[in-house]
Amino acid sequence: MKTWGGRFEGQPDPAAADFTRSLEIDVELALDDIAGSIAHVRGLGRAGLLTDPEVEALVGGLEGLRADVEDGSLEWDPALEDVHMNLEFALEARVGPVARKLHTGRSRNDQVSTGLRLWLRRTVDSLDDAAVGLERALVGLAARHPDAVMPGHTHVQPAQPVLFAHHLLAYVEMLERDRGRVADARRRANVSPLGSGAIAGAGFPLDRETTAAELGFESGTRNSIDASGDRDFVVETLAAVALGMVHLSRLAEELVWWSNPRFGFVRLADAHSTGSSMLPNKRNPDVAELVRGRTADVIGRLTATLAMLKGLPLGYQRDLQEDKAPLFAATRTLRASLDVLTGVMESLVVDEARLQAAAAEGYLTAVALADALVERGIAFRSAHHVVGRLVRVAEGRGVGLAALEGAEYAAALAESDDPAAAKLASDPELGAFLRAAATVDGALARCDVIGGTAPRRVQAELAAAAERLGI
Amino acid sequence: MKTWGGRFEGQPDPAAADFTRSLEIDVELALDDIAGSIAHVRGLGRAGLLTDPEVEALVGGLEGLRADVEDGSLEWDPALEDVHMNLEFALEARVGPVARKLHTGRSRNDQVSTGLRLWLRRTVDSLDDAAVGLERALVGLAARHPDAVMPGHTHVQPAQPVLFAHHLLAYVEMLERDRGRVADARRRANVSPLGSGAIAGAGFPLDRETTAAELGFESGTRNSIDASGDRDFVVETLAAVALGMVHLSRLAEELVWWSNPRFGFVRLADAHSTGSSMLPNKRNPDVAELVRGRTADVIGRLTATLAMLKGLPLGYQRDLQEDKAPLFAATRTLRASLDVLTGVMESLVVDEARLQAAAAEGYLTAVALADALVERGIAFRSAHHVVGRLVRVAEGRGVGLAALEGAEYAAALAESDDPAAAKLASDPELGAFLRAAATVDGALARCDVIGGTAPRRVQAELAAAAERLGI
Amino acid sequence: MKTWGGRFEGQPDPAAADFTRSLEIDVELALDDIAGSIAHVRGLGRAGLLTDPEVEALVGGLEGLRADVEDGSLEWDPALEDVHMNLEFALEARVGPVARKLHTGRSRNDQVSTGLRLWLRRTVDSLDDAAVGLERALVGLAARHPDAVMPGHTHVQPAQPVLFAHHLLAYVEMLERDRGRVADARRRANVSPLGSGAIAGAGFPLDRETTAAELGFESGTRNSIDASGDRDFVVETLAAVALGMVHLSRLAEELVWWSNPRFGFVRLADAHSTGSSMLPNKRNPDVAELVRGRTADVIGRLTATLAMLKGLPLGYQRDLQEDKAPLFAATRTLRASLDVLTGVMESLVVDEARLQAAAAEGYLTAVALADALVERGIAFRSAHHVVGRLVRVAEGRGVGLAALEGAEYAAALAESDDPAAAKLASDPELGAFLRAAATVDGALARCDVIGGTAPRRVQAELAAAAERLGI
Amino acid sequence: MKTWGGRFEGQPDPAAADFTRSLEIDVELALDDIAGSIAHVRGLGRAGLLTDPEVEALVGGLEGLRADVEDGSLEWDPALEDVHMNLEFALEARVGPVARKLHTGRSRNDQVSTGLRLWLRRTVDSLDDAAVGLERALVGLAARHPDAVMPGHTHVQPAQPVLFAHHLLAYVEMLERDRGRVADARRRANVSPLGSGAIAGAGFPLDRETTAAELGFESGTRNSIDASGDRDFVVETLAAVALGMVHLSRLAEELVWWSNPRFGFVRLADAHSTGSSMLPNKRNPDVAELVRGRTADVIGRLTATLAMLKGLPLGYQRDLQEDKAPLFAATRTLRASLDVLTGVMESLVVDEARLQAAAAEGYLTAVALADALVERGIAFRSAHHVVGRLVRVAEGRGVGLAALEGAEYAAALAESDDPAAAKLASDPELGAFLRAAATVDGALARCDVIGGTAPRRVQAELAAAAERLGI
Repeated sequence: MKTWGGRFEGQPDPAAADFTRSLEIDVELALDDIAGSIAHVRGLGRAGLLTDPEVEALVGGLEGLRADVEDGSLEWDPALEDVHMNLEFALEARVGPVARKLHTGRSRNDQVSTGLRLWLRRTVDSLDDAAVGLERALVGLAARHPDAVMPGHTHVQPAQPVLFAHHLLAYVEMLERDRGRVADARRRANVSPLGSGAIAGAGFPLDRETTAAELGFESGTRNSIDASGDRDFVVETLAAVALGMVHLSRLAEELVWWSNPRFGFVRLADAHSTGSSMLPNKRNPDVAELVRGRTADVIGRLTATLAMLKGLPLGYQRDLQEDKAPLFAATRTLRASLDVLTGVMESLVVDEARLQAAAAEGYLTAVALADALVERGIAFRSAHHVVGRLVRVAEGRGVGLAALEGAEYAAALAESDDPAAAKLASDPELGAFLRAAATVDGALARCDVIGGTAPRRVQAELAAAAERLGI
Repeated sequence: MKTWGGRFEGQPDPAAADFTRSLEIDVELALDDIAGSIAHVRGLGRAGLLTDPEVEALVGGLEGLRADVEDGSLEWDPALEDVHMNLEFALEARVGPVARKLHTGRSRNDQVSTGLRLWLRRTVDSLDDAAVGLERALVGLAARHPDAVMPGHTHVQPAQPVLFAHHLLAYVEMLERDRGRVADARRRANVSPLGSGAIAGAGFPLDRETTAAELGFESGTRNSIDASGDRDFVVETLAAVALGMVHLSRLAEELVWWSNPRFGFVRLADAHSTGSSMLPNKRNPDVAELVRGRTADVIGRLTATLAMLKGLPLGYQRDLQEDKAPLFAATRTLRASLDVLTGVMESLVVDEARLQAAAAEGYLTAVALADALVERGIAFRSAHHVVGRLVRVAEGRGVGLAALEGAEYAAALAESDDPAAAKLASDPELGAFLRAAATVDGALARCDVIGGTAPRRVQAELAAAAERLGI
Repeated sequence: MKTWGGRFEGQPDPAAADFTRSLEIDVELALDDIAGSIAHVRGLGRAGLLTDPEVEALVGGLEGLRADVEDGSLEWDPALEDVHMNLEFALEARVGPVARKLHTGRSRNDQVSTGLRLWLRRTVDSLDDAAVGLERALVGLAARHPDAVMPGHTHVQPAQPVLFAHHLLAYVEMLERDRGRVADARRRANVSPLGSGAIAGAGFPLDRETTAAELGFESGTRNSIDASGDRDFVVETLAAVALGMVHLSRLAEELVWWSNPRFGFVRLADAHSTGSSMLPNKRNPDVAELVRGRTADVIGRLTATLAMLKGLPLGYQRDLQEDKAPLFAATRTLRASLDVLTGVMESLVVDEARLQAAAAEGYLTAVALADALVERGIAFRSAHHVVGRLVRVAEGRGVGLAALEGAEYAAALAESDDPAAAKLASDPELGAFLRAAATVDGALARCDVIGGTAPRRVQAELAAAAERLGI
Repeated sequence: MKTWGGRFEGQPDPAAADFTRSLEIDVELALDDIAGSIAHVRGLGRAGLLTDPEVEALVGGLEGLRADVEDGSLEWDPALEDVHMNLEFALEARVGPVARKLHTGRSRNDQVSTGLRLWLRRTVDSLDDAAVGLERALVGLAARHPDAVMPGHTHVQPAQPVLFAHHLLAYVEMLERDRGRVADARRRANVSPLGSGAIAGAGFPLDRETTAAELGFESGTRNSIDASGDRDFVVETLAAVALGMVHLSRLAEELVWWSNPRFGFVRLADAHSTGSSMLPNKRNPDVAELVRGRTADVIGRLTATLAMLKGLPLGYQRDLQEDKAPLFAATRTLRASLDVLTGVMESLVVDEARLQAAAAEGYLTAVALADALVERGIAFRSAHHVVGRLVRVAEGRGVGLAALEGAEYAAALAESDDPAAAKLASDPELGAFLRAAATVDGALARCDVIGGTAPRRVQAELAAAAERLGI
């Protein structure tokens, strides 16, 4: 039953056959394998290795198989090891002995690589669609809360006030870079190994470039030994996918913590929440946790693929078969994570009042106060120190920076060795000036640079994103 | 249908339900879950929370489910999310409303951890059996070639002659350490989390120790918060399994290269070899390559599990669900790899003549020569230098060390600044003495220390291994 | 200058020499290498390969080098590649040509492995001390807040009330397991490879067991080929260290979030906090973040070491040199993390009022209510559903479970199809009964099982830990 | 001494200060940090926040520091935590209090990200140079052996004859893809975060685009929150570097095995070889082994960086400091590996006779024979089977395929159920025809497709590569 039996005696050891079988995994390549075979058959025809009727018979048979795969009627036989042998046998069953000519000028090595690249192309396109979907959901959510203020955190500690919409747009930036990376991976993958044979190149004068073009590849590969063992496109895609998952894990982390009642910033819809088999009070963000947890799996898949390739001599080694499970699993996880988070963001309930209340904690306007002092001629490093003292005073009294007395402001300034500070300390308008600088709205408005959180800047970015995404 | 519906309105989002479903994976825990439930039911009975008839009904129902699982007749419903909900619903279908009392004093958290530890215990036992199987095959192969000599390599360059049996016994040492590590992991895993509840401990006065003992655990865990989020036993087992696979990957690497005709040391049986769809001459050691390649997957699984756990707050997080796929996959891979390599070693054809021929290359007896010079009073570092010169001379002439002229030996010695060397250079017996030291048998016999390759040492180790393994 | 020059012409390429030099890293082994050399010299003496005066001279010289290393006066020469060649040359400079006899019956392979195992032993002991230090700090902190209540979280959502001390003791459990794992790794590492030579065993009749015993090893290794390429002890230690870091990363994560003012559970001392170069208000838990971040490095080190070993043929390969940097870095990180967290926990300020306030949110006593219903004969699954409805009602009204009206309790019960629920719904004492069950203290006290959070259980565990740790 | 002292009392804990200090690592950014500061000072001047004399003083001071860094005269003070604080203090020491204005409108977050991107740009350029260097060495080596034939291997088993030059060019293809990937990473990294402040954007109206252009960036980043916590450029570069190392590890593996005397294909120059401290005969390819071994470290670094980022909330977290050590280490390793392998390839001795002899083993022309049968009308699958039988016959007789008798050829054909085979079996010219097809030169010439190993194809690719590389 094997396609390589001539040299062998007896049957494979059943445990060994089980161990080497890949059908359960590579069955996902069925349609891509058929597409590659059709193009190969046409190439054999052009090269005079098949007659026109043979080409017709084989192409017809392959198209029939495609229909069977699509409607689920093709029966896969585990005894036939992999998807390729299954299809070759099914083809022979359908069109007779001419099927034995299909593998002319082709090896499993260039065949599998071709199929996997075709698969990659369409999968990457689907990831791109899903990324756009999540971007739209993020922009939509931002647009529903254009004025909501929240604490911008660094080190998970309150830093400065920012717009909630600004925070969401940070994820849009990440997703755009992710799209760029998978597009680059797709471009570099989009060359045809077909015609490279097992290692030395096909033994017949095939017009590789025409076949490549028929399959939508940009060109053919330039070295058959390289083509035989190249899995760069798998690794590059996995790396882009892993980084994409890392981005989603950051969003997931925020959803998880923000759902805790101490924050209460957001609430996932019931339809995206989960309960507990024991605790009737639980309302858990399991989908976010799973996005975070599965990110680890994708990192592990990338690691595994690199470790698998390390130290292999050139040309195909059977180790390379272990490229597909990680690639399939990782892209499936990213696709599902993008989709599920799109749903989460579309239905997310945001508590603007909680966000606003949190923005009143943590002395978020401290740097705005320091910057105001800078405008009065105090060196920034001195201003920073002065405001640091003010924070300490405010904290001791349990009040905000805007609630300090004029004398308290003055005292902090007077301690400074900055000449401008001493002068300002005696300004009678000092209290009013600093209290004005210390408001949340004032602090927001100060950040009026490209990419800053000043409302007009955020609105402009939001509008640009909406236009780009066709919302 | 959910077990946690009271607080929730509407149905889960289908994409979210798909995303969180774990049935395809955790169905492997079915028997362990049932065993845990039976013990839990008995504990509830002892605590007076179930009447005797209730205990009987539930235990009877669970035993019925066990039979259904074992004979494959239980139908799994993907809509029921996981194996646990499936079993709870199947139990209710079988025994009626009393099933609604099963989850008293228990949460999914302690339930899953209990089941997974039971699963781990039996899986580790099966790995241990398989490791013993491979050890036996290695010892058997060594015993079939007790006198075969081969080049011992370091840096993949010929170093010294060793016995082939000695080389095989190195793997036995590794496997013994592997067994020790999984046994340690098993011991540390063998404590019962049952009764820890969701996070705070069960709300009923359960006798956790008795239940633990009934399930064969050494004791109960000592802190419910720890128990709720502890996956140390998964990581420790994965680490032991990964290292075990690394050992097998080293054997695989050697089988691959030694099968190349330039070496020709070994030949895998036809039943363990694979051909090529294009090249009729191929006879490939695919099973060995897959062992090597899948080692990378197991490394990635360990990495993923550690990365998944990193930075999780205490208590159960849904991320922890991602512990099972890596554990199941990695142990399955190790088990299959041990089994397939056992078959390979049992049927391996060894070409003693090729091994012997290779041992004649690479000046393998150089250090034996140096050691002989040491016995004549030359400092080792000087002797090393002298023999290095002899190797250069022999290489230049294209002969072995034993084929050099007495004058050549003397010249190299005379160049040394070691006083004993100068003296020895003029010894008329020099040539005979050194030629005798430079034989392969002489070199082998010199390594007469515990763990050395001197034939009597190897035979002793082989005999000890055979006795330990009951061969 | 090289110790292996006899066969070679010309000088090493400078780039290649730079590339292979390991001195910067393996200098950390200096004292261990000297200890191994002293034992080896004594062994050579016992075997008659050195005279007594030679032994004395060499041992004296090595002890002199040890003093020089300890007081920092030994000058390391990068041109001498590694610590071993540096020491051998320094020895010759100190004691003359007899130093050229030191390397008799020894190779770099068994020498390095011996030194690294000695290093491992003392490093593991230091890690154990540091782990005990952190355990003491945790127990001390728990003892300072024996009655503090906090929300036990799962999924980062409030689950049940627990004692703060109970939460801290969870980390003590983890650290105890960590200690067990490194102790197991130490035990398995504690065998002597000395006498294994390069690959085939020493060429002289060395008494390996006596030398092993002098160095404190339990025995000698049993196979020289295995010993030459074995790095199991490195991997096993790295795996234990990585899991230890994962535990610390979980504590770090909690410290980070609990320091956010929305939680305000804890406050790191000023001496353990960090500010910002721009924001005067910041007070950041950088040390905790770095513990978390460096956990990733340790995971990567473990991954790297496994990937390095994968697929290496037996015997020493130079790749193995890459074992030391990961091992040294990972153990140093764990040691420093344990120490810095010990300081953090010793000076941590805990806000019991904030913990208590948080425990009032999130319907933490829901399962206690359900359990109380179970005591009245309602099946747990039904009780869970009833309480789920009560949570929904309470949430809608913005009150806690204990603030519901008797009629509200009754209505939820009446909806149930559990016969006991219907009966209980009409009980006039229902409200009082359920309100009593829904208190935090009542909920805590219910968890009265081994490992549960009931105060008497936690106190017992705390006392046991204090006794074990000698506090 | 800290720049953030205003709010703090007392001194940092020494252990905590040690734990957080990054100077040893980030000192590598000194020149980039200075470049960024100079551009920032000019921007502050343009925004009217500094007077012209202040700008002049600060720029002059920074240029002075640059000179000091370049000539090694700047003294780094570990007490000053990191490179940035060292430079700020050194600037103040040099130019006085005006230095306290340097940090106006800037935070450590945008400052570090700017410096790291500048560093990345120049490092990537240096990697590109080194990659070109290795390509040139490979092409040069190929050009010195244009006609050498060797066995093309798959599964480490002989597959088909290929040109040695063709094999070397496979690595050139990989290196070209590597160059493309790092160039893409560089392009995506080449945007300026300066002006993003700590998280919300600078509080002064800075013209970020002009400053970006002055630093050679393509534009500024578009979202300050994203910019604050973005390390995509680190991960993307690490991923490209890891894959680059994997390619080099494959070359290293081949060098290692091909140096074994059983192959004897190549010989590393003495200057790139290493001996043994014990075995005088050793000549080890340590540099190749270290390239292979260090590939694992780079994989681990990528893994660590992804695991570090996973699950971090947005904005800067101190974990991100752990980005630099992996990036610096990985790029340094790739650079050194490229350089050392360039030296190895430039001086590699190739034994064409050994290559040729190996090409006579393993029935390498089997598929050429099958292809010849296809030209006679036999279906490929049938031809494959026929030749498989011939291989079995040849192997049994211990001869090559070209040494079989006409009757043996005929018998194998006659067994086939392919009608064309039966016919051909009786062709009297059969033996001559097949023997001609089975020569190595005939087999080579058949692979006459783009990327194939036919000599004219390889020569064309070699010429194209030489032209592209300016050789």
